[in-house]
Amino acid sequence: MTKIRLEAISTKAPHDIEKDATKKRLETLLEELDELQNLLYAQNRHAVLVVIQGMDASGKDGLIRRVFGRLNPEGVQVASFKEPTAVELSHDFLWRIHLQAPAKGRIQVFNRSHYEDILVTRVHQMIDDDTAKKRMRAINDFEWLLHELGDTHILKFYLHTSPEERHKRLEERLSIPSKMWKYNDSDSKEAKLWPAYEKAYEDCFDHCSDIPWIVVPSDQNWYKEFVVAQTLKDTLKGLKMKYPGLKK
Amino acid sequence: MTKIRLEAISTKAPHDIEKDATKKRLETLLEELDELQNLLYAQNRHAVLVVIQGMDASGKDGLIRRVFGRLNPEGVQVASFKEPTAVELSHDFLWRIHLQAPAKGRIQVFNRSHYEDILVTRVHQMIDDDTAKKRMRAINDFEWLLHELGDTHILKFYLHTSPEERHKRLEERLSIPSKMWKYNDSDSKEAKLWPAYEKAYEDCFDHCSDIPWIVVPSDQNWYKEFVVAQTLKDTLKGLKMKYPGLKK
Repeated sequence: MTKIRLEAISTKAPHDIEKDATKKRLETLLEELDELQNLLYAQNRHAVLVVIQGMDASGKDGLIRRVFGRLNPEGVQVASFKEPTAVELSHDFLWRIHLQAPAKGRIQVFNRSHYEDILVTRVHQMIDDDTAKKRMRAINDFEWLLHELGDTHILKFYLHTSPEERHKRLEERLSIPSKMWKYNDSDSKEAKLWPAYEKAYEDCFDHCSDIPWIVVPSDQNWYKEFVVAQTLKDTLKGLKMKYPGLKK
Repeated sequence: MTKIRLEAISTKAPHDIEKDATKKRLETLLEELDELQNLLYAQNRHAVLVVIQGMDASGKDGLIRRVFGRLNPEGVQVASFKEPTAVELSHDFLWRIHLQAPAKGRIQVFNRSHYEDILVTRVHQMIDDDTAKKRMRAINDFEWLLHELGDTHILKFYLHTSPEERHKRLEERLSIPSKMWKYNDSDSKEAKLWPAYEKAYEDCFDHCSDIPWIVVPSDQNWYKEFVVAQTLKDTLKGLKMKYPGLKK
């Protein structure tokens, strides 16, 4: 398998993809997803876990709002993993994650995830390489467990953006009132660490790819949303689900 | 490592162990455990998981009551794993187990555990060998995670009793008022399956022994309690804990 090297991957939609047509296709996709989700819920056999990772300002919240926000919330939950609490820190790093694993029939979205435990923690040198290695092994084991013994289909998206686009978005947080709440004092400090984050991401693509990563060109929101919706649809279609009929 | 073959292991205390003297030593042990548990709680660095397995009437409840019931309940919790609920069944089999993993500073007792998922389920042919094999792998991964990344010291006790002793105890459930609540219609049906349970146990000793099993001769309650208390004390002593002094 070719290694993922972010530098070599475009952050933009391919040139032959047309914006307006894609937006129309996205609308159709969202309608199809609504029906497929209903089927997933009714059949109550498979679970879907959608992991969303990406740097600050890569558009994670917007993606969740505009794609998953269109589905029936009875069958979709979002878990946002912020800095761990004292109780969470008193357990192994996967404890709080496992707790939020999807039940059968459900789609669970992780806004950030267990991967932060080998990303932000490494960039800020809060853990050594040996611990990072152990965590990677534990992550592979954990995803295997969910997949093999929890009937869970896992999609791991990396929202790939250019530094220029991220800088532009961070600046908007200072000037656009509806975006100011997202501004964080540490944003500019973290921006200096982007190359280190990119390296940590590539390391985690290399070592935690039993379930493959999907790198989504995300400078344009419309394309990012389209790719994620299309991938989710293909996954749900692949389950070959059927309505179970009357209960016996 | 020699394989554990239950037939070859006595269910009784060795002949040179004297009952009254052992009961006195147990009292001393319980006082020492009280102090060690306080230290574990104060230092807030290690966790202890005590898994208790054994057939019906092997004396799990009594052990918990007479040994762990003597410790400060602020630092000790017991999770009894009964038949899984609908919500628990909608997740992988380790989901409800992981949720109950001990926090740092705590002792968690499992009255039955994740091992039931490769014991009762196999004896009653609710899962095939392939699933059992996957679950065994998942159990080894899980215990590794708790140990390596959760600072959790795991003690796995099998309460080893003779069929004669178990039959005697089951009959008491029919005649002694304070024991009647434990009687279960299925007891006698399950008793016919004891040889199959023994086989399933040996299979799980063979395949889930990265963290070793401790087979406790349990026909006599006083000896069983002594062995478990002594093992717990040795484990806590081995952590070389210190009171942390004033908070910085």
